[in-house]
Amino acid sequence: MTVHDPGASVARSKPSRPTMRDVADAAGVGVMTVSRVINGAVGVRPSTAERVREAITRLGYQLNHAASTLRRRHHGSMVIALLVDDIANPFYAALAGAVEEEAREHGFTVLFGSAKEDLQRERELVQAFTARRVDGLIAVPTDTEMWRDALTSVTVVFVDRPANGLPVDSVLVDGRSAAERGVRHLLEHGHTRIGYLGDLASIWTAQQRLQGYRDALGEAFDPELVQQGLRDAASAERAARELLGSARPPTALFAANDLITIGAVRAVAECGEGTAVVGFDDIVLADRLSPPLTVLAQDPVEIGTTAARLLFARLDGDDTPRREVVLPATLVVRGSGESRPE
Amino acid sequence: MTVHDPGASVARSKPSRPTMRDVADAAGVGVMTVSRVINGAVGVRPSTAERVREAITRLGYQLNHAASTLRRRHHGSMVIALLVDDIANPFYAALAGAVEEEAREHGFTVLFGSAKEDLQRERELVQAFTARRVDGLIAVPTDTEMWRDALTSVTVVFVDRPANGLPVDSVLVDGRSAAERGVRHLLEHGHTRIGYLGDLASIWTAQQRLQGYRDALGEAFDPELVQQGLRDAASAERAARELLGSARPPTALFAANDLITIGAVRAVAECGEGTAVVGFDDIVLADRLSPPLTVLAQDPVEIGTTAARLLFARLDGDDTPRREVVLPATLVVRGSGESRPE
Repeated sequence: MTVHDPGASVARSKPSRPTMRDVADAAGVGVMTVSRVINGAVGVRPSTAERVREAITRLGYQLNHAASTLRRRHHGSMVIALLVDDIANPFYAALAGAVEEEAREHGFTVLFGSAKEDLQRERELVQAFTARRVDGLIAVPTDTEMWRDALTSVTVVFVDRPANGLPVDSVLVDGRSAAERGVRHLLEHGHTRIGYLGDLASIWTAQQRLQGYRDALGEAFDPELVQQGLRDAASAERAARELLGSARPPTALFAANDLITIGAVRAVAECGEGTAVVGFDDIVLADRLSPPLTVLAQDPVEIGTTAARLLFARLDGDDTPRREVVLPATLVVRGSGESRPE
Repeated sequence: MTVHDPGASVARSKPSRPTMRDVADAAGVGVMTVSRVINGAVGVRPSTAERVREAITRLGYQLNHAASTLRRRHHGSMVIALLVDDIANPFYAALAGAVEEEAREHGFTVLFGSAKEDLQRERELVQAFTARRVDGLIAVPTDTEMWRDALTSVTVVFVDRPANGLPVDSVLVDGRSAAERGVRHLLEHGHTRIGYLGDLASIWTAQQRLQGYRDALGEAFDPELVQQGLRDAASAERAARELLGSARPPTALFAANDLITIGAVRAVAECGEGTAVVGFDDIVLADRLSPPLTVLAQDPVEIGTTAARLLFARLDGDDTPRREVVLPATLVVRGSGESRPE
């Protein structure tokens, strides 16, 4: 896996030059109005148009940016689409909010869709987005192969899954290292029997996190302590209860995403008092739970912002080689991972 | 305020007749393909089209529904838009997920935007949505008056704010009654000095909840215990600390939305041990907080589903009088509101 320094590559794609939003603010109008003036569309009062042009000159708003917007007018819609696993998941909601902010700066609006790890549903969404002539698409792809066709008509950035050889930029989180670190944290506190609760084994991020768990355990890895295919908090709670109720229960649980962590916390409270928990993804008020929850925190806002900046750089004509940006997840120690086994 | 029985009015707008999704499933194709066949668009293999038509006949998929879809093809985009306060707020994310599910059943995709209580931003979003010729718009409006223009070009359903005489359907939650009930719950446990932490006073839901707080307190209402204009957890935490640090601190806090509740819980943990808390909106793992959090739970999925069903009924030709559906919020007693004042 090629890992580029995220700081370096992303910094380049965030221009310090003024954006369309800056021009809009300076002229006291909306971004849509600026876009209309730049694109020569009708329906803008001459005095307003003059104010916008004056702001463009004063701020030095760059013409190549404007030109690319102009170019888009003829075959684009000023719309990008965001395809996630499930918009109702707070992680993807925060990511969507960040994508929207970047889109707004460029005068774009955002379509969204939740594929829910359903290949047929993903295909329909991609079809629907391209039929509506979106200019760009930020996606958490279920299966990268079916994306080949879409790439002929739309610029794509992948999030959370690697490009697998497709010509797209991607923004990943190093879940393998993070999971290893989280499990090592439990080992350092004396735990040797550590249960693993994970999402569908077909999901790349789930594979990475399981691999990190195995990396940390080495010879001590025991497949009997692994539960996968958990899609929501309820199924995770059931799986955790099963592990905790077994003949030789684990003394700690590693929960591989936010929904699974919720289930694990409930199961431990009900029938595993004292069992240590480390979760992947931070949760609101995790510091106020009893015990406070130790997590590996990804930053959905940073992920969404980075992906959107990569996309808009491409739409603005950036034709440098494709990039893979890898962001870290941070171990936040709060208490639930620090109890020692009895 | 006219309040219609939500059960009756919504039941009517949820047909038990088969949807486009049912036809798609029966024919083993995507919704887009069914839509294409119905609309006579090119690009569908004859054998596939035959299978879809066979499924339409077999299931009795209704032609008036199909006809309205056909009608839309000529001036619509099969896109609806969702305008919320902030998509990154889990409450609106859950609502968005529900709207998406309904839209999907009708073969529509969804644009979204966060107005963030910014009138200029809301205007831009509405302008952007209508410029992209959306068929319908579900909105949490900041100011209903500016919507008059938009209504000439798009079907609108309001969520969380009343129609104020505009010809739109609306889905509301009875926040006034719910807040009164929550504050009465604190009074019943012996609290007399109850602080109020609320959002911007300009927001209709905030006004309703403050009114409910006043209804419960009656003569005991003390404006010194009221803090408003709180837009996030951090400002709510500061406001709560201020109340708790005052000469005569409240023994209980009423927090008027989810973000404000997060701030209140933090403040109480830091400098108000034993202070009772009742929050508006449920929070993930609220039952696992210490103490478990008593809340007034709205159901964002029900709100989103109801609004989307009203919208699609209108798009399908329903021209019955406008409706205002009022949903309840439920008091969920868990512990944080039941401590008695010292």
